[in-house]
Amino acid sequence: MNQVRSRKPHIHCITNYVTANDCANILLASGSSPIMADCPEESAEITALCDGLLLNTGTLNPDKLSAMRKSGRIANERHHSVVLDPVGAGASRFRTESIKSLLKEIRFDVIRGNLTEIKALFCHETKSHGVDAVSSDRITEENLPEMINLIKMIASEQDTVIAVTGQIDIIADKNHAYCIRNGCSMMKSVTGSGCQLSALISAFITANPERILESAVTAVCAMGVCGEIALKHLAPYEGNASFRNRIIDAVYHLDSETLDRKADYQKF
Amino acid sequence: MNQVRSRKPHIHCITNYVTANDCANILLASGSSPIMADCPEESAEITALCDGLLLNTGTLNPDKLSAMRKSGRIANERHHSVVLDPVGAGASRFRTESIKSLLKEIRFDVIRGNLTEIKALFCHETKSHGVDAVSSDRITEENLPEMINLIKMIASEQDTVIAVTGQIDIIADKNHAYCIRNGCSMMKSVTGSGCQLSALISAFITANPERILESAVTAVCAMGVCGEIALKHLAPYEGNASFRNRIIDAVYHLDSETLDRKADYQKF
Amino acid sequence: MNQVRSRKPHIHCITNYVTANDCANILLASGSSPIMADCPEESAEITALCDGLLLNTGTLNPDKLSAMRKSGRIANERHHSVVLDPVGAGASRFRTESIKSLLKEIRFDVIRGNLTEIKALFCHETKSHGVDAVSSDRITEENLPEMINLIKMIASEQDTVIAVTGQIDIIADKNHAYCIRNGCSMMKSVTGSGCQLSALISAFITANPERILESAVTAVCAMGVCGEIALKHLAPYEGNASFRNRIIDAVYHLDSETLDRKADYQKF
Repeated sequence: MNQVRSRKPHIHCITNYVTANDCANILLASGSSPIMADCPEESAEITALCDGLLLNTGTLNPDKLSAMRKSGRIANERHHSVVLDPVGAGASRFRTESIKSLLKEIRFDVIRGNLTEIKALFCHETKSHGVDAVSSDRITEENLPEMINLIKMIASEQDTVIAVTGQIDIIADKNHAYCIRNGCSMMKSVTGSGCQLSALISAFITANPERILESAVTAVCAMGVCGEIALKHLAPYEGNASFRNRIIDAVYHLDSETLDRKADYQKF
Repeated sequence: MNQVRSRKPHIHCITNYVTANDCANILLASGSSPIMADCPEESAEITALCDGLLLNTGTLNPDKLSAMRKSGRIANERHHSVVLDPVGAGASRFRTESIKSLLKEIRFDVIRGNLTEIKALFCHETKSHGVDAVSSDRITEENLPEMINLIKMIASEQDTVIAVTGQIDIIADKNHAYCIRNGCSMMKSVTGSGCQLSALISAFITANPERILESAVTAVCAMGVCGEIALKHLAPYEGNASFRNRIIDAVYHLDSETLDRKADYQKF
Repeated sequence: MNQVRSRKPHIHCITNYVTANDCANILLASGSSPIMADCPEESAEITALCDGLLLNTGTLNPDKLSAMRKSGRIANERHHSVVLDPVGAGASRFRTESIKSLLKEIRFDVIRGNLTEIKALFCHETKSHGVDAVSSDRITEENLPEMINLIKMIASEQDTVIAVTGQIDIIADKNHAYCIRNGCSMMKSVTGSGCQLSALISAFITANPERILESAVTAVCAMGVCGEIALKHLAPYEGNASFRNRIIDAVYHLDSETLDRKADYQKF
């Protein structure tokens, strides 16, 4: 986290208009510097200027997809970190096929989604009702070992880091898996808490390119810890809108000591 | 309202980028689940996955219009609830004509707008200065009976529920009209408070499809009551930005008992 | 400022989707009335309805550019105030060339940007890393006289008011320059604080078209003073997200007496 604050990486985000503002503010809170630009006429050039790239497929359309392709290619050429947030994978053929084409053309350092999205892309299971995980797609204490194996297997096949987030989070590459129990259920009531987490992962791995898995794990812990801190500061009458602000506020004030103390993860 | 919390309807929103985030958060606050997707390549499929559809014509463009057409058709076929928020009707020929074409092709369960927008669409009166009602288009205690008749007549002609919101709100179908006096004038200072209300109506009628008029009335009361609660929690130095969050916060905490007690409506 | 509150100018914003919501809310806070509309099919008509026009080149694309052209032309014909915020000038050829084409075709009353953007447009210097000023492009007490001369020269060449904002702000036309020392460094951590300032300038000059330079200076002072007020109201655990809301809140409550007392400017 200190690396993010000191290196101040520039993150090019091609993302959806619903949560772009929150993603920009959480990146600023982390010490990194966001730029949103999503037209094919300029996206590759913007990517080249920056240090890391985040592709988020919310409110996808053909122009945005074309920008993602161009930016992904340049980012790979320049060895920039690239994160994919496959928002809505499984919700439509266009969305699923577009994301699959990105997976073919671009090498991603981290892919973060909910279990429904990850299964839609890699397990040929489509049960999506939109952008949230369907209720049967849940990582629980009971299915945890099975899920860890599944996610490690996908990470190995795709040769990348897969981060599946939900009540319990699993982040794995082909060799190791981490399971994280930070955060709180109210985070589901904030639109784009997943998008924001992907942005944070992007900042963390861009500032620490030599330790992708550990940086992604740290970002997931940080988001969860900030959710817990945000909840503590919430007045009884405050709800999800104030909570959204308090999470970003908590990222702004988070120091590595607090993160160390509160991070709740296990390595497998 | 309890139906929204227990049924958790999925609402597909084709909406503007200015207020999309607030609409998503107010839907989550209500217990429903939003998905925003507005490209013609996927909109119909997304609609089919969901339970209700909201078409909001802010920042309209030809692609978005085409997505609305496709989604509206599917929603009608599947008997999903459909809400229209004709943002900016009367402000440009493109906007007005596009909305009129939607009215011809799609059956809407509720149309919610301000008086200027409703008149532009159904009374051939165009006095728009943008997205707000012009000052002469006001529902007052004096013109209330006349306005109720006008709105009932439009509802009857269009065979739908018309909700005209402002200082006093009127919601009517061909048989009945309700007049609501909740809310406070500061709500006009929050961008997209109307968009958010339309989203809330969408959630309420989708969870209660057998009682469209009453559900729409309840949603309008709920929004007004939440405005009143939000105002009470506002510190003296807090303004429209904090107020925006507090309204959504209040929706998050609203229970049916409070709503019953505070709802201020009359039936005609 | 009183003129904004009493005249309530309608401002047509063609702007980016990242900060559109905040720009709308800060305009409402100031007493003016925003409308966002960015498709070429309607932009000119919307401009004609309004009193002022703001062109912000964040998340630019060819359609938005075409809308800007049409709106700019109409605004010039009707003698509406026009503000340019050249977000990201220098970050890509498409962005830079598009903005230069706007500069050729449209007469702007005020151009507000950071030093990197202004230099990219008028000094053939491109050092951009995205949307923020690069760290060497800073107005300091040391280079202040030199910078004032540079900005006056650009203002004279372009025959407009140039506002360069940063830690110290300089606003100049060909004859006079003002230097402003309000605000605080935390404002850099709020995405779109520059976009919001440009929106505020647009409201102020539209309400006071006979005194463009002074109105722009007042808007810059107002934004800075509101940043200072916002900081004072921030709880120790609140960060950039809450700060964003508090700035807009402060605009909502700002009165001309407070602004007079706290404005810290010098005329050259």
